[in-house]
Amino acid sequence: MTERKTDVAIIGSGTAGLNAMGRVKRAGKDFVLINGGEPGTTCARVGCMPSKAIIQVAEDFHRKSLYDREGIENWEGMRVNIPEAMEHTRDLRDTFVDRVLSNSTDHLSEEVFIEQYAHFVEPGVVELEDGQRIRADKFVIATGSTPIVPEAWKAFGDRIVTTDEFFELEDLPASMAVIGLGVIGLELGQAIARLGVNVTGIDLAEHIGGTSDPEVNKAAIEIISKEFPLWLGHGAEISEEADGRLKVTAGEQSVIVDKVFASMGRRPNLDNLGLENLGIELDARGIPQYNPNTMQIGDHPLFLAGDINADRPILHEAGDEGKIAGYNAAHDEIVAFRRKTPLAIVFSDPNIISVGTRFADLAPDTFKVGEMKIAPVGRALIMGKNRGTIRVYADSKSGKLLGAEMVAPRGENLAHLLAWCIQQELTVGELIRTPFYHPVMEEALQAALTSLYHQVEAKNPGPIAELRTLDQ
Amino acid sequence: MTERKTDVAIIGSGTAGLNAMGRVKRAGKDFVLINGGEPGTTCARVGCMPSKAIIQVAEDFHRKSLYDREGIENWEGMRVNIPEAMEHTRDLRDTFVDRVLSNSTDHLSEEVFIEQYAHFVEPGVVELEDGQRIRADKFVIATGSTPIVPEAWKAFGDRIVTTDEFFELEDLPASMAVIGLGVIGLELGQAIARLGVNVTGIDLAEHIGGTSDPEVNKAAIEIISKEFPLWLGHGAEISEEADGRLKVTAGEQSVIVDKVFASMGRRPNLDNLGLENLGIELDARGIPQYNPNTMQIGDHPLFLAGDINADRPILHEAGDEGKIAGYNAAHDEIVAFRRKTPLAIVFSDPNIISVGTRFADLAPDTFKVGEMKIAPVGRALIMGKNRGTIRVYADSKSGKLLGAEMVAPRGENLAHLLAWCIQQELTVGELIRTPFYHPVMEEALQAALTSLYHQVEAKNPGPIAELRTLDQ
Repeated sequence: MTERKTDVAIIGSGTAGLNAMGRVKRAGKDFVLINGGEPGTTCARVGCMPSKAIIQVAEDFHRKSLYDREGIENWEGMRVNIPEAMEHTRDLRDTFVDRVLSNSTDHLSEEVFIEQYAHFVEPGVVELEDGQRIRADKFVIATGSTPIVPEAWKAFGDRIVTTDEFFELEDLPASMAVIGLGVIGLELGQAIARLGVNVTGIDLAEHIGGTSDPEVNKAAIEIISKEFPLWLGHGAEISEEADGRLKVTAGEQSVIVDKVFASMGRRPNLDNLGLENLGIELDARGIPQYNPNTMQIGDHPLFLAGDINADRPILHEAGDEGKIAGYNAAHDEIVAFRRKTPLAIVFSDPNIISVGTRFADLAPDTFKVGEMKIAPVGRALIMGKNRGTIRVYADSKSGKLLGAEMVAPRGENLAHLLAWCIQQELTVGELIRTPFYHPVMEEALQAALTSLYHQVEAKNPGPIAELRTLDQ
Repeated sequence: MTERKTDVAIIGSGTAGLNAMGRVKRAGKDFVLINGGEPGTTCARVGCMPSKAIIQVAEDFHRKSLYDREGIENWEGMRVNIPEAMEHTRDLRDTFVDRVLSNSTDHLSEEVFIEQYAHFVEPGVVELEDGQRIRADKFVIATGSTPIVPEAWKAFGDRIVTTDEFFELEDLPASMAVIGLGVIGLELGQAIARLGVNVTGIDLAEHIGGTSDPEVNKAAIEIISKEFPLWLGHGAEISEEADGRLKVTAGEQSVIVDKVFASMGRRPNLDNLGLENLGIELDARGIPQYNPNTMQIGDHPLFLAGDINADRPILHEAGDEGKIAGYNAAHDEIVAFRRKTPLAIVFSDPNIISVGTRFADLAPDTFKVGEMKIAPVGRALIMGKNRGTIRVYADSKSGKLLGAEMVAPRGENLAHLLAWCIQQELTVGELIRTPFYHPVMEEALQAALTSLYHQVEAKNPGPIAELRTLDQ
């Protein structure tokens, strides 16, 4: 049994691990990067990127619903060759995965980039599959997450599909139940419905797409359920039919489908890491207790970054966590970093967005809500996308923007505007003084912000609320 | 000859005039609103709105160029029924015009909303077409602008088309020369090219879409000229062929077309206003000299708002000018207002954008440029729109963002982000600390800003440039 010694060992070469490596390298430390299973990030392999590719095809195909009114003719025979669309999706995915690898692990020697699973055998030491041990002063644990599939469903074999399998499908089934209507279920459920799959959407919760604002949730359900049925408020049960198809039951309703898409969230890859050998405290979810500003686990020389902590399973947050973990693993003094304004985007059509403080987390009686429906918005009408609702929240007294939830076309772009303003602690009064061009979707935000401005106590100085005077 | 007396007379019921009216009303002043010609705003009747409608049809039809790679089949017979597309455009336009009118002049009595042309006969007095005179303490002049057509071309009758006629066309000609490649020429030129018109684009200048940054201009020309030829650097001359078609010559090149689209800018509607009777000073363009922060002409009781001053002929600026002019016309004390961060959007595909200080107006040797090409941007690749360039400018020392020019997909949205940040006087260092989701077009901006950050002197405190520490 050989044992190697290094300064920092990073376990997991996904987004968090690669960002950690960048910081460890910059500090001039000796390190190893250890990765079990497929290299490449969750984002590029099975997440953000391939999902956006198939969503784009579905969106382009779906535009035909507007052709009659636009005067576009002779489109009725248009159809999607699903195997080709899936191939296109994989082609793009491969481009993105190659790009990640060629910018990161492809340049590392076998001594530095170790493609094996590792588990802790004692504090400070991991063992690899080949029996080799690595002793390190500090560890960054960034092993990511895996789609949740209830144990009982595993008996249904390849009729249960998760994002791990979805993008490998040569063809899509005629019918599919999508169980779990968070970001992944909604994005891919809507995409495959638009591509012609008979989709039934099911969720135990009464809300979809991570919304916590009842008005936004109501609008989202109304819009999405025009494309495929949503069965909410009941868990799903699956049984097998004589012909091998699956019967999915939720409450009083049931449907027989070819396959089930399981999009019930992802669980941290904590198993088989030997965490029990480290003497660290776990929280109720079985996740090591860590500080989200330092990424350190207790006061151990251990740092937890990325989806494994299940708190902000989003690429840019995983990147930040990797940087923080990597920096702190490579330096003696632990530095605490401020986290960015929360930002969550469901790339459904229209987008479903949460920015800053969620509606459910606002302190009662301290805030006001500005609202704008998308229906009358000029540009949305022209785009044939005039559905949705924007809700923005501000502190009643100071007028500081706190957060927003919305279901809106170009919501992804509006979300950035709001996130940046919340991070700069701007007031609604300051926002209504910014330029809004015409005709753009930002005007919907302007209307919501203006309605909010009239409700908060803090008023702009000067005779015209939306214009500063020269001496201000 | 009757003479009426009022507090404020507003000449022109377009965007600027209507906004002025709002402020005069709020101040409780007596007023008249006088409008010669068609009621309704330039924007709704012949500008922003109908142009976006036809652009949307063209964009939707143009997506077919991606169908093969996306696996969408049997689309080859698709065509646009142009009369129907034009009808759809007019339907939307009528909706927007109706909305403007029903929210404004429809509620006014004939005594207050006077649908006649007016001209000054002496300071403080205008005469209407029917001979009635109106004496007012203050005047807001907001008569807008008209497309420029060289006098010699008027002989070609309806073969010369401007935006005043374009949206009334029942059908589009087989071929068209678009003369003038600013915002209107580029937007409509590209749209009709995509709808099948054989377009030749011509401009006296060597730049298009209002760009002043040579790199952005180069990218814009390269992208747009893949859709139709651009003849730059020569003025156009038109002669008539024996068959009634028009021969358009620019430099060494010439083309025979069915119609010419004249998009050479708009001239202020100053004629026939009797300005010569007011004893006011005109600038070199023949426009009354006014203060852009108060909209006042000299120290006369006259205020100039909207496209008539030819300085910021954009809807939201016309609105601001109307508000400023209206406020000052209704109050004894003149207040100077700060103007918003400049923002100009060409809704071509990709968008062409200028925000803040234009490249050409930056003080030499005081700034740095950050650049990002759109080609490798993940989301752009997925959208099939990975063409363009983003260039952002910051003060070399302070790192304050000064401006940007770009040709980029979703440029309209990125432009708002940048305009808001410039108005808040944020530094590049602050901007790279904001959240950028993945995969979004904002990431292209992130790359440009990051390259800019590395060039400016002002650096973020703390060990990770893109993250604040908790105590900052």
